[in-house]
Amino acid sequence: MIRIAIAGYGNLGKGVEKAVCAAPDMELVCVFTRRDPSALKVASGVPVASTADMKDWQGKIDVVVLCGGSATDLPKQTPEIASMFSVIDSFDTHADIPKHFAAVDAAAKAAGTTAMISVGWDPGLFSLNRVYAESVLPQGKTYTFWGKGVSQGHSDAIRRIKGVKRGIQYTVPVPEAVESVRRGDEPELTTRQKHTRVCYVVAEEGADKAAIETAIKTMPKYFDEYDTTVSFIDEETFDREHNTLPHGGFVMRSGRTGDTKQLIEYNLTLGSNPEFTGSVLTAYARAAARLHAEGETGCRTVFDIAPKYLSPLSDDELRAHML
Amino acid sequence: MIRIAIAGYGNLGKGVEKAVCAAPDMELVCVFTRRDPSALKVASGVPVASTADMKDWQGKIDVVVLCGGSATDLPKQTPEIASMFSVIDSFDTHADIPKHFAAVDAAAKAAGTTAMISVGWDPGLFSLNRVYAESVLPQGKTYTFWGKGVSQGHSDAIRRIKGVKRGIQYTVPVPEAVESVRRGDEPELTTRQKHTRVCYVVAEEGADKAAIETAIKTMPKYFDEYDTTVSFIDEETFDREHNTLPHGGFVMRSGRTGDTKQLIEYNLTLGSNPEFTGSVLTAYARAAARLHAEGETGCRTVFDIAPKYLSPLSDDELRAHML
Repeated sequence: MIRIAIAGYGNLGKGVEKAVCAAPDMELVCVFTRRDPSALKVASGVPVASTADMKDWQGKIDVVVLCGGSATDLPKQTPEIASMFSVIDSFDTHADIPKHFAAVDAAAKAAGTTAMISVGWDPGLFSLNRVYAESVLPQGKTYTFWGKGVSQGHSDAIRRIKGVKRGIQYTVPVPEAVESVRRGDEPELTTRQKHTRVCYVVAEEGADKAAIETAIKTMPKYFDEYDTTVSFIDEETFDREHNTLPHGGFVMRSGRTGDTKQLIEYNLTLGSNPEFTGSVLTAYARAAARLHAEGETGCRTVFDIAPKYLSPLSDDELRAHML
Repeated sequence: MIRIAIAGYGNLGKGVEKAVCAAPDMELVCVFTRRDPSALKVASGVPVASTADMKDWQGKIDVVVLCGGSATDLPKQTPEIASMFSVIDSFDTHADIPKHFAAVDAAAKAAGTTAMISVGWDPGLFSLNRVYAESVLPQGKTYTFWGKGVSQGHSDAIRRIKGVKRGIQYTVPVPEAVESVRRGDEPELTTRQKHTRVCYVVAEEGADKAAIETAIKTMPKYFDEYDTTVSFIDEETFDREHNTLPHGGFVMRSGRTGDTKQLIEYNLTLGSNPEFTGSVLTAYARAAARLHAEGETGCRTVFDIAPKYLSPLSDDELRAHML
């Protein structure tokens, strides 16, 4: 059995917990929290321990799955914890990946642990599909569309606006853009042409709704380059209709062999983004444990991992039943 | 530059030739044929040599891409040629893969070469997607649909019927079945419920069309378990409308995390099946050359190959631009 621990018990940590408990070859050992461990009850009922006491668990855990945020938690946590345990994270600040990789690689090599970063669906499974598709069809264009799904970053941005009580933002691909790519037109698409942003807001009593709408639509980077719609709804409707975290998207490679059109398309339709990301992390935690058992140390990404390492099946079983 | 040779110059060999000539890091050295080499002109203008003289080319070629058929050519050719060169094939008789693997692995290990078998899209990219998807979502069902596309085996079967001058068969997924899977119904589907078979036939003059239609529709294994339609057309129409080899299909994993539905879908829409298969073989030939340079010998499948080996980009470039 591969012994797993989870560090951080938000939506993502809960998703990992569910996936690990469903895996036939894994055992959830404990959950680490920065809060008071005695105040946290976890769904699986495993022990909860303080992040400060992690060192005491060495030898009892094969892989720690890090479920903190990319903005401030992981840049510090992943190298730190990689100096004690093999680790895996879902670091998703694309521009900072090389820097994060270098820090984690150095820590893991020094400690003789195995680390994997930026595992999830984007970065993660979408990245894999970009590499497979561009390697097979070097001539062509790659498109990534996200949604329909909840963007947590954009939802947070709405909620920081004065007068907003509740808020959620859905990223929605523009159907005409998706169809054009699917037809093999290889269009040049602006940011605005690829996605729209759909917002639902519960306003505080007496708040200036027009001002809220303007504040959202003109917010630099988050909304100003998109066609954004804002709908004001009451709190009851919000709680009833916007209580899940669906997401998904497409990676499309519109390619050519000579003059012949060839299309590769990878689609995800996710009922729960954190539960799916947790499932991807869990499959790659299996790979990290196996690589470590084979004596590999240092940092890896999804590009470095042969698919067989993700599966609980043996090489013989994979060849006989999955090829 | 990775030095490639092609063995066999049918549709697949021509597809590989196109892909190798388009690759920035590859050089096509020669084409091997069992026919009279002086009678074969190849599109790229590279030398044509006899399969019988292959041994003379040792040291001049990094990987030989085998483009023969799975029924009789590859079971013999792949182990034989693996005893002289690193090789890659598209062996696609699913049931015989373990036996083929063992024979090729023994030959490659004895000779110190690197072999890859069953590379293409099914087996190949579809197999990969089955393993990735089932590893990430262990609870659920996997569905593979083929088409719309030309099945060469079924087209050959039609052409063997008395009175048939020309014939082609398209495998077509049943839209209702695809939609049911996409909705997350996880249906149990019979062979008949998944695909229909659509045939176009040019009859010999005076042939008994009713007899041809019956012979097709009742042919065991090929057609009897399917809803099959047969249309008789004239030769001009046949040549105009049925002169390409499109194909494609879907791998769908309808899974669950707890009670939450999650769908992973991989779609190929291929203008030319042999050119696309040739492109996949070419990307994996790059992997074979690199693995061989790293000192790895023996037989591999797509499950054993980390995605980075397929790309001409460096590890740093992949992390910086593709994650």
